[in-house]
Amino acid sequence: MVELVVVGSVALDNIKTPLGEVSEALGGAAVYSSVAASFLTDVGVVGVIGKDFPNDYVEFLLERGICTKGLCTSNGRTFRWHGHYEGDMNNATTLKTELNAFATFDPELPDEYKKAKYVFLANIDPELQMRVIKQMENPKLIAMDTMNHWIEKDKQKVFDVIEMCDVLLINSDEAKKLLDTHNTIKAGKLLLKMGLKAVVIKKGEHGALLFTKEGVFSAPAFPLDDVKDPTGAGDSFAGGFMGWLAKTDDLSFDNLKRAMICATAVASYNAEGFGVDNLKKISYEDIEGRCEELKELVNF
Amino acid sequence: MVELVVVGSVALDNIKTPLGEVSEALGGAAVYSSVAASFLTDVGVVGVIGKDFPNDYVEFLLERGICTKGLCTSNGRTFRWHGHYEGDMNNATTLKTELNAFATFDPELPDEYKKAKYVFLANIDPELQMRVIKQMENPKLIAMDTMNHWIEKDKQKVFDVIEMCDVLLINSDEAKKLLDTHNTIKAGKLLLKMGLKAVVIKKGEHGALLFTKEGVFSAPAFPLDDVKDPTGAGDSFAGGFMGWLAKTDDLSFDNLKRAMICATAVASYNAEGFGVDNLKKISYEDIEGRCEELKELVNF
Repeated sequence: MVELVVVGSVALDNIKTPLGEVSEALGGAAVYSSVAASFLTDVGVVGVIGKDFPNDYVEFLLERGICTKGLCTSNGRTFRWHGHYEGDMNNATTLKTELNAFATFDPELPDEYKKAKYVFLANIDPELQMRVIKQMENPKLIAMDTMNHWIEKDKQKVFDVIEMCDVLLINSDEAKKLLDTHNTIKAGKLLLKMGLKAVVIKKGEHGALLFTKEGVFSAPAFPLDDVKDPTGAGDSFAGGFMGWLAKTDDLSFDNLKRAMICATAVASYNAEGFGVDNLKKISYEDIEGRCEELKELVNF
Repeated sequence: MVELVVVGSVALDNIKTPLGEVSEALGGAAVYSSVAASFLTDVGVVGVIGKDFPNDYVEFLLERGICTKGLCTSNGRTFRWHGHYEGDMNNATTLKTELNAFATFDPELPDEYKKAKYVFLANIDPELQMRVIKQMENPKLIAMDTMNHWIEKDKQKVFDVIEMCDVLLINSDEAKKLLDTHNTIKAGKLLLKMGLKAVVIKKGEHGALLFTKEGVFSAPAFPLDDVKDPTGAGDSFAGGFMGWLAKTDDLSFDNLKRAMICATAVASYNAEGFGVDNLKKISYEDIEGRCEELKELVNF
């Protein structure tokens, strides 16, 4: 039974960082989020692939226990992203985006997904996010991400989706852009006032902040001195966060904090390898272990 | 009796931020550090002022219990800094620096300072930092800061001082520049290998990291949605850190962590007002209160 529905891009990525490069690697926000969440709960992924999508990649998702009934195969090629990182690797430079099959993506949920309690709308057009929400029968919690592109294109549409959601996971630059402020804390507090149960502001190598009515929680980043490829770190963070909530089915402030820590652990493993490579090598026990290390890291 | 000697600049600052401006305000790294530390221990400040230095400012330092015997008055004007902040206020733009009396500063320690157990060498010429070290009789712990200017001018001289110190407090960009790396964690670990007991990397609104042989500690920033003026935040952090160590006289990893938290609390109060204004309004109990809030902020 699908506990968590993840909707977003499925991609073939071409990535270059100071530590190496990969081509036609399995990627996309829905993939990173689903794979991260698959350590914790039963995930159903919704996305579109082209006829050129390697069967090995579908096999990998299935091996991770991810339901792929929501992956539709379109005529034409799979969405491709070409990006590279330099210096501190905090920001990707997009060299090329080929939308391909993704250009006409219209998410349609298999019936068994519609009953899921948890939904994560990764970064896609807010209109598509809205269409997914309308297909859900009685979700307990809907979370969303977004990005600069949609904020610049039509901020109101992003706010319309926020109004339908319980949790917003967003990176700090995007949060500040969305709220027209230079202060991350102010952005978080303003977003919370829009009626969200929780706002999660992702700060990459600086950790993440959780804003709820009960208070603010600061999650540290796991101290990595060997980031190989930050691609998908924010998406695997979201997947770890949602996977934890779906696994525990507890929306208390204390448990949202634990979800932040679990998310941090998964995202840190993700950044230690190219694409999803490193997530192939770890187990749930590794995530638990890193959560313990994170506790030590901030304990005083 | 002076427990902590603080050496560095004493300045008259002209600061403009999106939330206001001040002119000829009391400033300088030695002032911010001393005032912050004065909530915790007996501080003696070493610096130079000009004949134009307002007597009110000396009075204020004395009221805070700071020994000013190490402040020498030079002919000519006091060091002045003109700076402004925009946007996220993470970086100051220096509009003008007038070295004035500071140009010929040659720190000479009063005899009673030479017996102090704790020394903080704020950001000044590494040659001057070295001269201070040589004047100390039997210090228990020497900490230092530095800045881009000295790293660019002569990195080796900075390393020479590091070799004589126990603790380095440095901001993340400077740490990365000093170690020729883009990764803050790597910079911290490499600095630790140089023989320091502890490396503190300050990350402004993102908190601070402590590296010791026993492990890494991540201190959150206090979540402020109303930063008025970040000037001196790093220096008051250092003052709070050193003040705590001098007060407790305990160099264990656990106590270094508590010093980081105390430092964070003081620095956050500092950033809520222009110059040292807000530090005039708080008490030791306020700092304790904020330390408790910081515990809640990261507790899970």
